[in-house]
Amino acid sequence: MVDANLHPFDAALTLTPAGTSSFIGRTHPAYQNMVGPYGGLSAAQALQAVLKHPALLGQPVALTVNFAAAIADGEFRVEVNPVRTNRSTQHWSVVFTQPDASGTDSTVLTATVMTAVRRGTWSAADLAMPEVPRPSELPRSPFDGRPTWFQRYDMRFCTGNLPEQWTGAAHESLTQLWVRDDPARALDITGLAAMCDVFYPRVWLRRATPTPAGTVTLTSYFHVGSAELAAANGGYVFAQARGVRYFNGYFDQSAHVWSEAGQLLASSHQLVYFKE
Amino acid sequence: MVDANLHPFDAALTLTPAGTSSFIGRTHPAYQNMVGPYGGLSAAQALQAVLKHPALLGQPVALTVNFAAAIADGEFRVEVNPVRTNRSTQHWSVVFTQPDASGTDSTVLTATVMTAVRRGTWSAADLAMPEVPRPSELPRSPFDGRPTWFQRYDMRFCTGNLPEQWTGAAHESLTQLWVRDDPARALDITGLAAMCDVFYPRVWLRRATPTPAGTVTLTSYFHVGSAELAAANGGYVFAQARGVRYFNGYFDQSAHVWSEAGQLLASSHQLVYFKE
Repeated sequence: MVDANLHPFDAALTLTPAGTSSFIGRTHPAYQNMVGPYGGLSAAQALQAVLKHPALLGQPVALTVNFAAAIADGEFRVEVNPVRTNRSTQHWSVVFTQPDASGTDSTVLTATVMTAVRRGTWSAADLAMPEVPRPSELPRSPFDGRPTWFQRYDMRFCTGNLPEQWTGAAHESLTQLWVRDDPARALDITGLAAMCDVFYPRVWLRRATPTPAGTVTLTSYFHVGSAELAAANGGYVFAQARGVRYFNGYFDQSAHVWSEAGQLLASSHQLVYFKE
Repeated sequence: MVDANLHPFDAALTLTPAGTSSFIGRTHPAYQNMVGPYGGLSAAQALQAVLKHPALLGQPVALTVNFAAAIADGEFRVEVNPVRTNRSTQHWSVVFTQPDASGTDSTVLTATVMTAVRRGTWSAADLAMPEVPRPSELPRSPFDGRPTWFQRYDMRFCTGNLPEQWTGAAHESLTQLWVRDDPARALDITGLAAMCDVFYPRVWLRRATPTPAGTVTLTSYFHVGSAELAAANGGYVFAQARGVRYFNGYFDQSAHVWSEAGQLLASSHQLVYFKE
């Protein structure tokens, strides 16, 4: 049973235990993309399975999600296993399965997660947050015609919103925006993991041409503990993404997410399929 | 049996079939690091297991390797499975195991690989290769005291070689170098995968301080097919890496590798453990 008062993101993250190291998860109507769920939600669900496992050691430092097939609306099975536990680190394997057309369980998503007990060390950032207008100085982006999951985020673009006209002209692939859950939600590691995938495909911006495109694999590194996440509570995060190389059907993008106060919270990279 | 005339990299990549979807691999004395094997070799071995699997579809487009524990010198078992095969893409799981102190098989490395049949599309690069001296204009870096695997690469640094003095002074974390196998070897996808890890830890350069450090997870995206790799044959590649965020025991770096002719061949990111 899902509590109707839950934030939709927390409702979407709800996993029902189904035996040792297994859960039943579900897609959620509030986070649907054009086809299937918003990839950021699937990434957060994979991470959530690790966080809910009784053997968890430490906090997430790295997450890789492979989108192996479209996830059909409804339930999926989550298998989550600690494959190696060391003194202060742990490596995890996560697999989502759904019955295929013939009724056989088929893998639709795989993920690996690394968790660690962090210790205080010298810390620094080589990538500074760009100077941009504050969120209050920018209009909220309208949703017109965008997939449902867009409505679950208050997005305020500094640059690189969707092209207003699909002219086919070459364009820089940089997007910069402020983003916050809608309704507002205290930032935590699953929320951050989801926001790492908040960008529409770079190739649409780069070419001002809408072509079929979808993330095939995503890797995020988290530079933050629960204390730093608590400090970012309620604020916007600043998210930036840029395309790197487009080659014969796939391109990669690199993204970074900062707290409103300018602390780099996550680095996130993905490879995206595109057509033509 | 390993042919004594094989290039040491090909000798190190040799996998002996050991049942369905299993191989026996071995560390190789020519590619040893300070503790255990060079991570780039382990990454290449994981990729090689996929390339040697009879069910392979297409060519590698993405590789994530999680270094779960130190790999002891000698043999390890490789389990490799296609977890999802679509019309033109395939997702793979790879696991290396070795007996632990009690003799129980224990996971030392996990990897996920995505392969795809590429189709010709619009292609471009948003990241240009920097203007740097040609390899012939630069001296080869000496090996003095570095781990064995360094000797398997002809490295010519443009900037960011190991600090000559460990002064503890803050320094930019950028390294740029030309690199080629030694002995020379035709570039292929496994060679490229290994070269993505050719950088010593950024934190050593950033702080001019040698502290214990080691890669815990690495993700590479390949922007190249076998035809483009063949065109790069025999030449150097240009490799660049920069640190991003250093926080409580872990930092990430982003690296890119170009052909000598200036084509971006790979993007590669990693999270690295460091002490203090």
